[in-house]
Amino acid sequence: MKKTTVKGTNDYLPEEVRLRDYLQNIILKTYTDAGFERIMTPAVEDIENLDKSDGGDNLNLIFKILKRGDKLEKALETGGELCDMGLRYDLTLPLSRYYANNREKLLTPAKCIQIGSVYRAERPQKGRLREFVQCDIDIIGSKSIGCEIELIHTTAKALLAIGVGDFTVKINDRRILKSLLLSVGFEESQLDSVCVTFDKLDKIGADGVTEELREKGFAASAVDKFAQTIARPLSVENIKEICGAEAVEDIEKIITVSDELADGYDIKFDISLVRGQGYYTGTVFEVVSNKFRGSIAGGGRYDNLIGKFTGEQIPAVGFSIGFERIFAILRDAGYKIPDAKKKLALFYDAENIAEAVREAESLRNEYEVSLNERPKKLSKYLDRLKENGYYGFCFCGSADDIRKLA
Amino acid sequence: MKKTTVKGTNDYLPEEVRLRDYLQNIILKTYTDAGFERIMTPAVEDIENLDKSDGGDNLNLIFKILKRGDKLEKALETGGELCDMGLRYDLTLPLSRYYANNREKLLTPAKCIQIGSVYRAERPQKGRLREFVQCDIDIIGSKSIGCEIELIHTTAKALLAIGVGDFTVKINDRRILKSLLLSVGFEESQLDSVCVTFDKLDKIGADGVTEELREKGFAASAVDKFAQTIARPLSVENIKEICGAEAVEDIEKIITVSDELADGYDIKFDISLVRGQGYYTGTVFEVVSNKFRGSIAGGGRYDNLIGKFTGEQIPAVGFSIGFERIFAILRDAGYKIPDAKKKLALFYDAENIAEAVREAESLRNEYEVSLNERPKKLSKYLDRLKENGYYGFCFCGSADDIRKLA
Repeated sequence: MKKTTVKGTNDYLPEEVRLRDYLQNIILKTYTDAGFERIMTPAVEDIENLDKSDGGDNLNLIFKILKRGDKLEKALETGGELCDMGLRYDLTLPLSRYYANNREKLLTPAKCIQIGSVYRAERPQKGRLREFVQCDIDIIGSKSIGCEIELIHTTAKALLAIGVGDFTVKINDRRILKSLLLSVGFEESQLDSVCVTFDKLDKIGADGVTEELREKGFAASAVDKFAQTIARPLSVENIKEICGAEAVEDIEKIITVSDELADGYDIKFDISLVRGQGYYTGTVFEVVSNKFRGSIAGGGRYDNLIGKFTGEQIPAVGFSIGFERIFAILRDAGYKIPDAKKKLALFYDAENIAEAVREAESLRNEYEVSLNERPKKLSKYLDRLKENGYYGFCFCGSADDIRKLA
Repeated sequence: MKKTTVKGTNDYLPEEVRLRDYLQNIILKTYTDAGFERIMTPAVEDIENLDKSDGGDNLNLIFKILKRGDKLEKALETGGELCDMGLRYDLTLPLSRYYANNREKLLTPAKCIQIGSVYRAERPQKGRLREFVQCDIDIIGSKSIGCEIELIHTTAKALLAIGVGDFTVKINDRRILKSLLLSVGFEESQLDSVCVTFDKLDKIGADGVTEELREKGFAASAVDKFAQTIARPLSVENIKEICGAEAVEDIEKIITVSDELADGYDIKFDISLVRGQGYYTGTVFEVVSNKFRGSIAGGGRYDNLIGKFTGEQIPAVGFSIGFERIFAILRDAGYKIPDAKKKLALFYDAENIAEAVREAESLRNEYEVSLNERPKKLSKYLDRLKENGYYGFCFCGSADDIRKLA
C-alpha cells in the first residue's frame, strides 16, 4: 500500500496543524467580531451546478465523483454521464446555492464567513495544491459600496492580526476596464483575450503587453492607442478623463474611504487587475504582499451568480484569503504561536496508571500533559521529547518535581 | 440550477456552525491538554489504499473520483479502472498511512487527534449522513493497556466537557468473544455471521439471538450450548470460568482502573459488543447514551492495519466520537453556548461609512458588531435582527446609546 498522499495534497505534522488552527481561529474571530457569521456547505456539489457556474478555467479542474450502482451501469451502457457530483473548486458557488436554499432563515444583507477546503486538479508544482483552504467573507443582498469598504477593511484587519504586514490592496472595476478597452477600439469579443495579456502588466511591463497584443493579431490602431494609454500611469484621475467621471465615482469613493481607514497597509487603484473568475461583474480586489511574490487574497462583486439559483438578480460581493500561501509564508518564517501552553511528559509504571492519570489531570490547567509508560531508554526518549518541542517531564508520584529539558 | 445540497449532506445555518465549532474546540482542547496532538490528512486517498483496508461493509460505500485526461480515455477504451482516488470513509486508514509516511518525525508512541469529515454512500435515512465529522484520538506504537485506559478516560472527559452526561462505556475484547464462540462449538468460518446476530443482543434479547442463530442453520448443539451460556449474565467472572483467567486478565485490569477513574459515567463489560470494522484485533469499546438510542463513540485496537503500510507490525488503538450524533442531540435540546459574545447592529448612512467603521471597532472588544446601511423599514428589520439572536443596535454617531431589542 502507498505511504504517500495523493498528488498535490499534504499530510500536516502536529506543529503545522497547530499553526493552521491558530491562524484560522484568529481569522475567524476577526470576522465574527465584525458581525459576519460562519456557515458551512458540503465539500461535494451537484455536477451540473459546478459545470454551469461561470468558474472560468476552474471548470476544467473539477474532480468528478463516479455514479454508483444502477445509475453507473446505465451510464456505462448508454455512454451517458458517468458522474453526478463533484468536489467544490471554490467557496463562492456553494455560497450562492446556500443563499438560494436558506435565504428565508438568513438576514439580508447576509454576511457570511466560510473557511473550508476546495479542490482543483491543478498541474502539480511548488506551492500549487490540489486540496487547499480558503477563508472567505461575503455580503449578499446589497449593492452598497459600503460592502466593498467593509470587506477590504475586515480582510486587511485579519491579515494584520495574523502577522502578515507590508501588503497592498489593489482595486479595480471590470466595468471601467471594459469601457477603457472598448474606447481604444478593441471589440467586445476580444476583451477576454486582451485582459489575459493586460493582467500581466506587473510582470512584463507596458512594452511586453503591447508586444503580446500585437502578436495576438489585434487591429494595429487599437493596440497603438492602447499602448499610448498605458504608457502613462493609469490613476483614477487619468481614467476619469477617458471613461467619464460617472463610471469611476464608486471606485473613487471606495478607494478614498478605504485609504482613510487603512492603518498599516496600502490601497492602490490598478486598472490592469483582472482576476480570472468569469463570474465577477464589477469591483475586483487583490492583496499582494510587498515582500513575497503572488497574491494572498482576492475577490470581487458577482451580481449575477446567485440569480442562477433564485431566478432574480441578487447582488453579492466577497473577499477570499488564500490560506495556504499565508500558512506557507509564516511556517517558513518560523512563526511562533504566542502564549502557547507548554508540553510536559508524565512517566508512569504499569502498576500506577490510575494514580498517573489523576496526577496528570492536576497539571493540565497549566500544561499539556502527555502520559507515557516509563521508556526503557529514558535519556534517548528525553532527546526525542525535546526535539518535539516538549518543555519538561516528571514521574508519577512526584509530579511536583518538574524537570526542564535543558 | 439546484438549490438543495446533494443527497445525504447538509447546509449548516450560522447558529448551527457556532455550536459545531464550539463543541469541536472543547473536544480539541480536552485532547490537546491530555498530550495528544492534532494531525491532518487529505480528504482524498489512493483508491487502492481504500480498497485494501479491511474496512468491512464500508468498502462498499466509498465515493470514487474519476480519472482525468489521457488516463480516463485509456481506461474507457480498455475497460480498465475508471478511478484512481476516493474520499476517505473513516480517519483510521488515513492515520495508518500517515504514520507510515511520517513516523521519523513523530514521537513513538504517537498520540494523534483527528477532527475531520469522512464520506460514505449510505442509504439516506434520518440521522444518517453521507458527509459527517468524526473526532478521533489514537495511540500508535504501544501495546500497553495504559493506552486503552487513557483513551477511555480522555474520550469520556471530552463528552462530559461538552455536556453529554449519563452515558456508559461498554468494553469487550474480540479475542475473548472469539474464544467463547469457538468453545461452544461454532466453527471459525461461522464467527462473522454469529457475531452479526450476537451484536443485536441489546435489541432482541437472548431468545431473539438464539432464534436467529437457529434460523441461520448453525449446528443445533452449538446454538443450544450458546443459548445456555448467554442465558445468565455474562460478567467478566463468568467469562473467566469459560475461557480461562489469562484471556481476561487485560480486560479485567482495563475495566477495574477505568471504573476507578470514572466520575460521572459507567464502565461495563459487554461480551456482545462486536463493532463492525474488520480491522479491529483486540479490545473494542463503545459509548452509549443512557438517554438517547444508538452509540455516540466507538473504537478499538487495530494492531495489523499499520503493518500493511510499513511491513512490520505496529500496535495501535483508537477511540472515535461520532460528532454528528452529539451535535444533533445538543442542537435539538436547545443547547446554549456559555459566555457567547452579544450581537449588535450599527446602522450608518452612505456618507458616514468611515466613521461607522471606526465606531464599530471601538465596540468590538465587547460585542460582535455588524455594520448595516440604515434599512428603509427599520422596525421590520429590527424584528429580523431579534429573530436572528441580536442583542441590540445603535446608530452611527451615537454608538454609546445601545438600544436593546426587547
